[in-house]
Amino acid sequence: MIRIAVDMMGGDCGIDSNVGGILRFIRNYNYNDVVFDLFGNITHLETSITKLGGLPIGLCTIHDTGDRMISSDERASIAIKRGGGTSMFEAISHVALKRADAVVSSGNTGAYMALSKTVVGMIPGIIRPALVSIIPNIRGRSVMLDLGANTDCSSIQLAQFAAMGSAVAKVLLSVDNPSVALLNIGTERSKGTETLDEAYKILEGNVNINFSGFIEGTDIGNGTSDVIVTDGFSGNVSLKTMEGTIMYLLHLAKEEVSKSFFCKLGYFFCRGMLSSIRNSLDPSRHNGAPLVGLRNIVIKSHGNADAIGFATAISSAVTLAKSKFISNITENLASLKTDDSGKNPHENRNK
Amino acid sequence: MIRIAVDMMGGDCGIDSNVGGILRFIRNYNYNDVVFDLFGNITHLETSITKLGGLPIGLCTIHDTGDRMISSDERASIAIKRGGGTSMFEAISHVALKRADAVVSSGNTGAYMALSKTVVGMIPGIIRPALVSIIPNIRGRSVMLDLGANTDCSSIQLAQFAAMGSAVAKVLLSVDNPSVALLNIGTERSKGTETLDEAYKILEGNVNINFSGFIEGTDIGNGTSDVIVTDGFSGNVSLKTMEGTIMYLLHLAKEEVSKSFFCKLGYFFCRGMLSSIRNSLDPSRHNGAPLVGLRNIVIKSHGNADAIGFATAISSAVTLAKSKFISNITENLASLKTDDSGKNPHENRNK
Repeated sequence: MIRIAVDMMGGDCGIDSNVGGILRFIRNYNYNDVVFDLFGNITHLETSITKLGGLPIGLCTIHDTGDRMISSDERASIAIKRGGGTSMFEAISHVALKRADAVVSSGNTGAYMALSKTVVGMIPGIIRPALVSIIPNIRGRSVMLDLGANTDCSSIQLAQFAAMGSAVAKVLLSVDNPSVALLNIGTERSKGTETLDEAYKILEGNVNINFSGFIEGTDIGNGTSDVIVTDGFSGNVSLKTMEGTIMYLLHLAKEEVSKSFFCKLGYFFCRGMLSSIRNSLDPSRHNGAPLVGLRNIVIKSHGNADAIGFATAISSAVTLAKSKFISNITENLASLKTDDSGKNPHENRNK
Repeated sequence: MIRIAVDMMGGDCGIDSNVGGILRFIRNYNYNDVVFDLFGNITHLETSITKLGGLPIGLCTIHDTGDRMISSDERASIAIKRGGGTSMFEAISHVALKRADAVVSSGNTGAYMALSKTVVGMIPGIIRPALVSIIPNIRGRSVMLDLGANTDCSSIQLAQFAAMGSAVAKVLLSVDNPSVALLNIGTERSKGTETLDEAYKILEGNVNINFSGFIEGTDIGNGTSDVIVTDGFSGNVSLKTMEGTIMYLLHLAKEEVSKSFFCKLGYFFCRGMLSSIRNSLDPSRHNGAPLVGLRNIVIKSHGNADAIGFATAISSAVTLAKSKFISNITENLASLKTDDSGKNPHENRNK
């Protein structure tokens, strides 16, 4: 039996999206071995559950956290000090105490990361956890990390991201031996920063991680690699540039369609195509980013996830909980090349 | 009279693109005060000129550089040592010796940057030159820098990029008081790295530079700011991510169109729209990136620029040469906030 702890008060779309997500998961995904621990204000939860047609008896346990919740603009440092008793904190604690196999929240990313790090703890050797995203591309999907949790990264951190990203791709992309690349400003070995050069040296020839070298920004859309490793700053800029570019292209298309009768006619025939493209790009389809490097499975759902998106995030949690995800990360970490002193570099760094 | 020095041997598309670009500029742009100094192999140049219908007499002077040219994979350090006598070197020298007002090349970016820095020299106070790009967006176009020349940047370098980018936008985007923003992982003042925080402090309240704070990746497509300032690593990743995303979306559209008869019909009616979108995104339309921070006007044309693109790059060179571009940069640099010691920070750094 898989048990998922859920912060029901997180996200910008209100409690109904989260309740709707649970309902959608139960109805549409074919699992009969998943149960839920729901954390939130019991009055609001019961109102929402009734409104949406009720939850199946026995699958969900509600844990009342009253009015205690972490707001979307709460600072991480404050969340650590005063977070106790909130829906997010209690859901995370449930997993830390081994009462659930994974936790899901659409709440404040910084606070969620900070609380998870403090309450759940990190896998031994890990310098800092990372935020993963699933990116659609020409060949299918890729896993990309870090997406903003770590703005400055050492070469060892990048190598650890490679180890963790490989484990995520294995499970969430169902790829046996995922290719892992470092994002750079060119594909040639001589390109980029010293940090990237050192990360390359740590990763090349690794037996557990299928390291394929450097890729550049254009390769993200091409799907050249299953796993894209980068520091949190470039990762965040890249992901958001992608979103901005999609908005720009849709704007261009809309503007052009409005200009001519023939285009409007064409648009009528192409509606199916456009909705299919929108579906491919829909964040809901790729929702559920693991915070990796933690001792347990912690899933971040988009702040603006609707019920469809929230159900997708829950399914990621379930898929990871059913896999050997954490032990795979540990194996990959152990395989990182030792430095000249014969020690594992990530052990050196973490002292 | 504006005199443009042109490296005719640079670029991946061959000498005909460059000759074609000159011809196109002369025929299609309404200038009667622009003349050219063309540097390259005279035999190849004359063959190409004859093939393309000849150049108007008196507008172009050919400077024969024989077989001496810089290849696309030449290292910058080698180009500096052995570059003398090549078409690129001689074109740059022509500008440095005040025999021309601007230089244009589609050749090896690294070598072009290194040679320009050495031969032309930098504006006093500038730490390193930057590579600018013109980015199309929902509201029109923006200027973005740096695009890969400087992977690691200090706060003072970022502030200098702001000063230089503002001068570029004024001329190339024809904006009186261009807004200038720092690219970050969020728009809140507290977000990002220490370097960005320091750059913010240098720029806020500046009288010459219309500094508007932080923007994030999504804002690039939105056109929130006229000038986007970032380090060369993030800039390069962001620009190439944009290119990859566009390729991905066009691939999705093509795939969907091939699936249904109605879509094919729709596509037929939408051809005009699609070609208009392709035009908006066409790098040729935005070609001609200035290398800024140098004592003279140095324009980098895309390596794969065709005749249309090369003509656009030449028109950028002419527009900048007719403006007070260099003196505007100098004014903006002087306006950068002094540090606690009362000294101008970019002067401190450059010692």
